[in-house]
Order: sequence, then structure tokens, then C-alpha cells
Amino acid sequence: MPELANDIFLRALRREPTEYTPIWLMRQAGRYLPEYNDTRRRAGSFLALCKNPELACEVTLQPLERFPLDAAILFSDILTIPDAMGLGLYFAEGEGPRFERPVRDEEAVARLAVPDPSQELRYVTDAVRTIRSALAGRVPLIGFAGSPWTLACYMVEGGASADFRRIKTMLYQRPDLLERILAINADAVAAYLNAQIDAGAQVVMIFDSWGGALADGAFQRFSLEPMRRVVSALRGRGGAQVGAQGGTPADRGARVPVIVFTKGGGPWLEDIAGLDCDAVGVDWTVNLGRARERIGERCALQGNLDPMVLMAGESAVRREAQRVLDSFGAPAPGFGHVFNLGHGISQFTPPENVAVLVDAVHSCSRRLPAS
Amino acid sequence: MPELANDIFLRALRREPTEYTPIWLMRQAGRYLPEYNDTRRRAGSFLALCKNPELACEVTLQPLERFPLDAAILFSDILTIPDAMGLGLYFAEGEGPRFERPVRDEEAVARLAVPDPSQELRYVTDAVRTIRSALAGRVPLIGFAGSPWTLACYMVEGGASADFRRIKTMLYQRPDLLERILAINADAVAAYLNAQIDAGAQVVMIFDSWGGALADGAFQRFSLEPMRRVVSALRGRGGAQVGAQGGTPADRGARVPVIVFTKGGGPWLEDIAGLDCDAVGVDWTVNLGRARERIGERCALQGNLDPMVLMAGESAVRREAQRVLDSFGAPAPGFGHVFNLGHGISQFTPPENVAVLVDAVHSCSRRLPAS
Repeated sequence: MPELANDIFLRALRREPTEYTPIWLMRQAGRYLPEYNDTRRRAGSFLALCKNPELACEVTLQPLERFPLDAAILFSDILTIPDAMGLGLYFAEGEGPRFERPVRDEEAVARLAVPDPSQELRYVTDAVRTIRSALAGRVPLIGFAGSPWTLACYMVEGGASADFRRIKTMLYQRPDLLERILAINADAVAAYLNAQIDAGAQVVMIFDSWGGALADGAFQRFSLEPMRRVVSALRGRGGAQVGAQGGTPADRGARVPVIVFTKGGGPWLEDIAGLDCDAVGVDWTVNLGRARERIGERCALQGNLDPMVLMAGESAVRREAQRVLDSFGAPAPGFGHVFNLGHGISQFTPPENVAVLVDAVHSCSRRLPAS
Repeated sequence: MPELANDIFLRALRREPTEYTPIWLMRQAGRYLPEYNDTRRRAGSFLALCKNPELACEVTLQPLERFPLDAAILFSDILTIPDAMGLGLYFAEGEGPRFERPVRDEEAVARLAVPDPSQELRYVTDAVRTIRSALAGRVPLIGFAGSPWTLACYMVEGGASADFRRIKTMLYQRPDLLERILAINADAVAAYLNAQIDAGAQVVMIFDSWGGALADGAFQRFSLEPMRRVVSALRGRGGAQVGAQGGTPADRGARVPVIVFTKGGGPWLEDIAGLDCDAVGVDWTVNLGRARERIGERCALQGNLDPMVLMAGESAVRREAQRVLDSFGAPAPGFGHVFNLGHGISQFTPPENVAVLVDAVHSCSRRLPAS
């Protein structure tokens, strides 16, 4: 495996000096790119695309061909885990993800088991290996998974939900049942992320997309604690190092950085930063400067441009990118900032505005090399 | 007009001692009540119900017949204002509110004007008068309006939106255009709330349902500042007192309390509390104790039970009600708490759980009279 040509993203996560602020975008390989839509059409469906390592590699690299992004992220979906648990993931036209067999009672919970990533999720680790090799050291590769709570939302609701009525009824009425689901999910997520690390992922990220739907108190118990269980079981943390069979020699024994992103998690930044993670992702409601004060030197921050800024013209994109950089403030030892959106990029984004954004972040943040 | 038999809600808003914590529920007159559904059927539609003062009065009083709530709230909809502006409000089956003529360009903005509450919104002030009279002093009556930003969301998007793409494109690309809409909305909301006060509303509330969708910085400019314009123009604030023609003698010259509720507004509590309002409503992601510390003695707090708690059984409702009360903490001079949900009550709520909640809040919070 070649050395990394651009390791600025990793250095920002380690809170080491960087020549400029690195940037990547959540869902950077996606429907706003015509070439992505072409590949997806060839694959036949979104799920087929996720399950085909060569095509998943192709779309992962597409945004890097267009924009000088500082990281690649595995093309996949957070629902691969519940799918591997046998819940029957499918996509209803125009309605988002659905499960044929949602988990709503004692019996369904009893049937749940941690999938073996080397079997049911083999297509994901194959994709990681393929992408890592194709990247040839250009930029680091991020692996990812949904948080235990976020996965449970889909598993119990059977799909997306506006009010989370079913899972919250379980939460308030049968917290013991929900905690059993969350424990299984946590072990499944940890095993899955470790398998991605063994296959070559250089950073992993936990997407807690629905943590912000929880009440204060419930968040800590039902989303934060299961995430702590995940993080503490990751390679380089819970004892087990990056496997001898996987990763590059340089990876072995290393602590692979973890980014935790709770959408709507602004109220609980200190809690999340206490997870032994390397970066906390924040959405656009958060003031980055205040977040930096609250978190201190515990970890780096990732975020947080409103994705809708990319709908406006070049001058708006440059102005708002500058605003995010200013909000984080001057670089200083012990602090790190990875520029990103506060949520996934919209399918309606004009690709040329992404080029403007990446250029704006790189050029506005460029600084003299640390002496 | 009779004296108020129960003024505990008003005293809590004034942060005076109360024998127990008052409670009312957002959307307490609504679809979870079979008698509401009966009246709505008789009216023919939701909009017809809003526009019929006698039937609006009937449904406003229904929850008070069942539960010893400490306030009544006008039955109406936040979209009455854009409807009165001529945008053509209608409800598509299963799809929520829609506007026939959304406001998306310079010409549409130029056509906008502040509706005359005594003309286009007469049905609302008639409802306020009818309800105030029917209440006969049992509990105070709350009037309300949407925030300028929240109304603008519906006006520009043409209905509900998941990503606020149209209005945020305007926000980032043509902030001047959006600010013209917001200025008109602010004046319309102020005139509308003053008309409700003149007709007998004893408290008014501003629902900033979509303020939490805004980025830090954008919230302050596009939601907070227009709300400041509203609050400063209300009776008893901007100079004009409660009109000689309206209100009760006791109301005249009084400062009618204002509650501001930004859903997802946790990051900006200090900003909202700086609005010269009497209470800040908070959703369930907010820790009430920390909110109290942040806001200090600037105003009271209203909230913040997760509405989904009402889906669980009696013991869960009692436990979680207690948790909210404990989270706010002990009463003290200069502090006030109004118990509420963190958002509107769900249509799927079993009414008997509301009875449990009201009883739990009243009995758990009952204290010796302040000496």
C-alpha cells in the first residue's frame, strides 16, 4: 500500500497543524452528480449499487475526480446492518427505505443477532478493499455505520418516521426491550466498523442521524451509551489492535480516528466529546466557536455549512464558507477543524457550486506552514 | 367580564409564587379527542372549523371539560395570515397545508400587504370574543400566531418542506427579498396579535415552528429579529396600550404576557429570552435546569415533555412528568415554569393519558402556599 499523498484530513483529526482546513462532504458521492446517476442506472438500483464492490468503488471515486477533496468515504448505506440481520430492506418508490420484518415485539427482539461482517456484509469489506486499492494513497478512506439508536429507529418503525411513535412508545414503556436491541446493534456496529478497519478504512464515522429526536436524558441513555459501547470496542481502543490480516502495515497498532455525528446533537456536545472519539460532527444550528469553547481540547470538530448554501450562487457560497471558517476561529495547538456540511449534500446541488466551496475553503484557510 | 377563577398560569408567567405548576398542552383541542373529530365533521373541514367562531369556541372548550387544564388556547391555525394575504390556503388530503399562489419572486413579494385583522381575519377575533365569553373566567385565554419566518417558510415553499430549499435559496441568494417578506409578516403578526388582545386574549404566543431549521447566524437575522419587531409592537410594549374598545377593564393598560416558542431553539435560548418576552417555550431536547441557569431571571420557561410519553402507560407518564418537574427544580422568586409538551400533542394520544399527566403535574408540584 502506498503512503498517503494527502494526509491533511488525518492530521486535522489528530489536531496537528495543517497548511489549510481539509474538506469533504457528507454524501459527496451521490445524486447531484450525473456520473453517479449513470452508474446507479447501470447497477439497476440503489441497493444493487451498494452491494456491488466495483460499482461502489466507482461512485466513491467520482467526486474526487471533480473536486480536490481531502477524504473519500465508502459508498454504502447505514441500513446494511439491519438488512444483514434479515429484516428485509427494500426501497419503496419515492418513500425511502422500508423493512419487510420490523422489530416490534419480544419475539422479534429475541430473534435478533449480530451479523458476521465477513459473511453477510462481505460485500462492504470487499468494497473497502477495492476502494482503498483504487485510491492508491491519494486521500484517506472513511468507513462508516449508523449509530445503534439510529438503526433501531428504522428497525422498529419499519422505515423513516416523522414522530418516532413506535420506538418511543417502546422507549418509555419497555426500555428493557429497547436496550436489548441497542446492545445487539452496538455489538453489530463495532464488529462492522472493525471489519471495515481491517479491510483498509483509515477513519470511521458513526452517523447518529436521529439522536436529535430524543429528549434530554433519553439521548444519554439510548443513543450516547450505546455509542460509547461501540467506540470502546473499536480497534486500538478496547484492546484488540487492527488485525494482522487487514489494514496496511502503517495502520497496524494505530488508533483509527473515530468521528461521531449526532444530527441535532448541539445540546449534548460535551457528552459526545466525552466518548473517546477524535472528532464530533455538528450541524449548522451550532455555533462552531462556542462548540470549540465547550469541547476544548478533547477532540476536533467537523462541520457545519448549511447544505442549502450550495443552492445559491458563487458569491454566497464563498461568503458562507468564510463565515464557517471565521466561526471556528484561528488554528491553535490542540484544536482541529474538518470542514463539512451540517448534513448530507442535497441531490439538487449544482456540482459547480461544490467546486467553488472546495476552492473557497482551501484558499481562505491557507496559512503559512507551522514553524 | 368575570374575574379569573384560576389565574395560576398568569402568575407563573409573571414569575410570582404559585401553589402548583400550571399546565396546558400545545394543540390540546385536537384530533386525539373524539368530540373534536365530531365537531370537525360537522364543520365539513379543518378550514371551515377555523373560520366558524361558534364551532372554534366549541372545540377550544372541549379539553377543559375533560381535564383541569390551567389555560385555554384559541382554536385556529398559524396559516390564517398568509391565507388572508390572498395566497389561497388549502389542505391536500394527507399532505398538509398548501398554497395556490406561493411567493417566489420579486413580483409576488411586491404584491404582499399586511391584512387588516378587522376585515380578512374578523372570524378569528370573533372566535376570541366568543371563547372569552364562554370561558366566563375559568382560565385565561391564549391567542397565537406563527412567527414571521415560519409563515414565510410556508409562503415561499408553498407548503411543508423537508429541506426548506426554496426559502433557503432565497435567504442565501436574495436576503433582501426575504427580509421584505419578513418585515410584512412581522407587521401582520403584530397587528393580528394586537387584534386578538383587543378581542380578549389574555396571553399571546408566537409559534416559531421552523426557526430550528436555520443555521446559527441566519436564525438571529431571519427569525429572531422579525420576532423582536413583533414583540416590540404588541400592546403594552411599543407604546399602544390595550385598546379602549377591546379587552376587559382589567386588561387595559396591562402588559399582556408573550410566550415565544422556537422548536429546536435550544442553541439560542439566551437570544430568545432577550426578546422582551415573558416566557420561552422549549422542546424536549432542552434540559430545563440548564435552560433555567442560562436564562436566569429574564423570563419564565414553558415545556417540555416529549409528546410521545403520552403513548406509554400511566406509570411512564407519571415518571416522566416528575422528571420534567425535577429537571426545572424548586420554585424560587424570579423563576416561573409552565408545564407543557415540547411540541403539539399527537393525534394518536389516548385521552386517558392526558388526564394522568394533568393530575401528575398538579399533584407532584403542589406546595404549601408561599408565606
